[in-house]
Amino acid sequence: MTWLSPLTIGNVNPKVKSIVDACSLIEFSLVQVMKCEYAVRGEIVMRAQLLEQELITKPSSLPFEEIIYCNIGNPQSLGQVPITFFREASVVALCDNPSLLDKAETHALFSADAIARAWKIIDKIPGKATGAYSHSQGLQYCREEIAAAIARRDGYPAKAEDLYLTDGASVAVHMMMQLLISSEKDGIMCPIPQYPLYSASMTLHGGSLVPYYLNESAGWGLEVQELQQQIQKARGSGINVRALVVINPGNPTGQVLSEENQKKIIQFCKDERLLLLADEVYQENIYAEGKKFQSFKKVARSMGLGENDLSIVSFHSVSKGYYGECGRRGGYMEVTGVDKDVKEQIYKIASVNLCSNISGQILMSLVSNPPKAGDESYEDYVRERDGILASLARRAKLLAEGFNKLEGVSCNQAEGAMYLFPRLHLPERALKAAAAVSMAADTFYARRLLDATGIVVVPGSGFGQVPGTWHIRCTILPAEEKMPALITRLTSFHQRFMDEFRD
Amino acid sequence: MTWLSPLTIGNVNPKVKSIVDACSLIEFSLVQVMKCEYAVRGEIVMRAQLLEQELITKPSSLPFEEIIYCNIGNPQSLGQVPITFFREASVVALCDNPSLLDKAETHALFSADAIARAWKIIDKIPGKATGAYSHSQGLQYCREEIAAAIARRDGYPAKAEDLYLTDGASVAVHMMMQLLISSEKDGIMCPIPQYPLYSASMTLHGGSLVPYYLNESAGWGLEVQELQQQIQKARGSGINVRALVVINPGNPTGQVLSEENQKKIIQFCKDERLLLLADEVYQENIYAEGKKFQSFKKVARSMGLGENDLSIVSFHSVSKGYYGECGRRGGYMEVTGVDKDVKEQIYKIASVNLCSNISGQILMSLVSNPPKAGDESYEDYVRERDGILASLARRAKLLAEGFNKLEGVSCNQAEGAMYLFPRLHLPERALKAAAAVSMAADTFYARRLLDATGIVVVPGSGFGQVPGTWHIRCTILPAEEKMPALITRLTSFHQRFMDEFRD
Repeated sequence: MTWLSPLTIGNVNPKVKSIVDACSLIEFSLVQVMKCEYAVRGEIVMRAQLLEQELITKPSSLPFEEIIYCNIGNPQSLGQVPITFFREASVVALCDNPSLLDKAETHALFSADAIARAWKIIDKIPGKATGAYSHSQGLQYCREEIAAAIARRDGYPAKAEDLYLTDGASVAVHMMMQLLISSEKDGIMCPIPQYPLYSASMTLHGGSLVPYYLNESAGWGLEVQELQQQIQKARGSGINVRALVVINPGNPTGQVLSEENQKKIIQFCKDERLLLLADEVYQENIYAEGKKFQSFKKVARSMGLGENDLSIVSFHSVSKGYYGECGRRGGYMEVTGVDKDVKEQIYKIASVNLCSNISGQILMSLVSNPPKAGDESYEDYVRERDGILASLARRAKLLAEGFNKLEGVSCNQAEGAMYLFPRLHLPERALKAAAAVSMAADTFYARRLLDATGIVVVPGSGFGQVPGTWHIRCTILPAEEKMPALITRLTSFHQRFMDEFRD
Repeated sequence: MTWLSPLTIGNVNPKVKSIVDACSLIEFSLVQVMKCEYAVRGEIVMRAQLLEQELITKPSSLPFEEIIYCNIGNPQSLGQVPITFFREASVVALCDNPSLLDKAETHALFSADAIARAWKIIDKIPGKATGAYSHSQGLQYCREEIAAAIARRDGYPAKAEDLYLTDGASVAVHMMMQLLISSEKDGIMCPIPQYPLYSASMTLHGGSLVPYYLNESAGWGLEVQELQQQIQKARGSGINVRALVVINPGNPTGQVLSEENQKKIIQFCKDERLLLLADEVYQENIYAEGKKFQSFKKVARSMGLGENDLSIVSFHSVSKGYYGECGRRGGYMEVTGVDKDVKEQIYKIASVNLCSNISGQILMSLVSNPPKAGDESYEDYVRERDGILASLARRAKLLAEGFNKLEGVSCNQAEGAMYLFPRLHLPERALKAAAAVSMAADTFYARRLLDATGIVVVPGSGFGQVPGTWHIRCTILPAEEKMPALITRLTSFHQRFMDEFRD
């Protein structure tokens, strides 16, 4: 990938490169891979894994008792309990064994509607075989269920044939990058800060990231004027700009776009003939009063724009929302307004990996179609769902307040998603200390935080930020009862850090 | 991808390319994707899916009652029943709910050792959370279980840190291609015929496939002299040859390499400093008397070659063997003799997709460690396993006999794997008829076969073959009781085909 100065990506260390070539038995061709960085599982996380081992082998050697992973949106790793209905129905479906499913004991263990749903799914799978490869776009039944759910959500039609079920949304993003990029002359517009999947995927495919900056002082607002400036600049450099990535609700920013803003973005894509890549995986995670998720497809249709006017790809996943089933690797993309010939090529890429995992496909169809009023599981489902979402909203607020009380830290509220992205106004002496050890200042801060408290956050430099500004991304996912202690540890660390470096 | 004349890959149809650019709302950059072909899910299979729909909407419109998918190794789609223990233990583990697993009903439904194994797995998962992202290489416990199994299989050590668990073996192959290829100057040696995942993946990554031909008249033997000639030729054309793919047992050829042959291949890789990419997904599928699977790593270690002498990547999967759990997308690669810096880059690529699905990870650890003598499930397990393997061996023999009885068809036995790759000596008039409709002759034959009988096979041109020869690949997976009828249909079709075109 080229052209993205504010990110650390793109700086291949020539020394490392030559070591790799010299020491290996065989020679790799690692240029693109080495350029790629994926901060949410980067050096801070690797160090955290080391420290976690140390806590096991030498329990009292560190100034804390556990590592708290606030680096990634992985709810169940921090204790979130799976939604009963989804788990039951998906597990029962995988039993895939009529003699087992018909037994009385099964009915004693699982709710009647979970078993009924599992049967419904199994009956629709060719040969009732959940252990078989499916159609490369995913099981027809699961796609029909998801399409129906999208249509209910938006009030506009959705088609099973437009859906590609994938092992999590990341795989779908890679597929689109593969289709859009064949050289560094191919550019994709991407918000800064961004979820580093995008920069990493563009780097791996050898394309150019065309950045547009979100306005932190306007609550991480997306301004169309900025889009216009950046596309002109990129085109002036000979970049063929093909697509625009929008993450809504925002990651890492937590912003939820207004409908008015979405309309402007859609108009911009139409005018500039850009494919709109809409990352909508946090569509169920909305916390701010008065904010509402609207899919880009819905907004486009409400503007009277149809398949022939605009190309939109929407990504979704079982990993986020209130369900947070990250380990199941379920996801999809809905591809609309794209030519039949191109869709055949998307199918081909999907077919090269045969199909996504059936368990994830089933789960994606379940979270799209949760229990309804009257179903045995309905009340439990609503209680579990609302409990999780209300708790996430409280945690988001609590943590933002905690950050905003810290000296030299300012933090926008999370209107949605699962993260805060506070800005650190670091003292000159801290910047110098970081430079002295060849670290980005926010990495230096995150490393110190980890070593002192066991709290794992991701340095803002991994997401991109306005040069000279420093941030960290912290998930709102630690269990609610642990949140006060976490804020206390964070506060006490920050004070000591400032005491050490205050100018 | 460049340079592979015998395959149809590489021929971009400029007309299609321009259509895509002209008709789409947005412009894609599809060069590499359009070049890519993946025959096992290609045009014949797409036509089969259409015909399947027709059978539903107009039941008596076709000269057959069902489509029989012999195009891909997908056992459960053709009625193979899952191995009870693996299915039970993996499903129970996914229940992930102590209150559920402790109940008496659970014990009435599932075998005691399946429940015990599920508990063992859950207890080893951080936070007992099967819905969380795991380590990007896969759960530590699953990797330890698999490493122990590899060590038992080979009699040489294996390490959890060398394992990368993936959503099926295909994903692992793509990861290695990503690492090895950065331009068309990077070449990978690959058998012809080959499983088209390799050609497709090289094409998508923009590398060059360096072919070496297997010797059909010597039972699809792999001859080192051929390797030497082809590597010289490739280097003479300025290709930097980085790796050698060997598929053992062979796909589509069914050949099981002798230890002596493996030693020569290993020596060749060592001498030429090539990474050995060993596709060993059919290691449990051996049918020929006196043949035995030996991993390349084991053979290399037996030659006294260690980590510092040779780089080997071995691929394995839950999709094949006697278990055939394709839909679960479990797999791994074991990476040995590769520098630490390179392994960090492999980790990075794995981390960009976060992790593979937990269900597939658990299943991979289970098939690596099946029930042992004395376990409650042991006898059932042995009966199921041996029943499937014995039946596959009988079916392989029966089908090869069937092919060999056909006029102008010669077919090597399947010593292992799941396929036959019979050669079709087609009459001149058939070749001309195919050319008249711009089809490869074997595609013409496969299309005629599908339309007349509903049997789906893959044309040999999708795998590569000596120019001027024609083959089809047919799985040995149709249910044993259906095999005689299938052979009758095949025979009767072939007679009619020959009657129509005989010179």
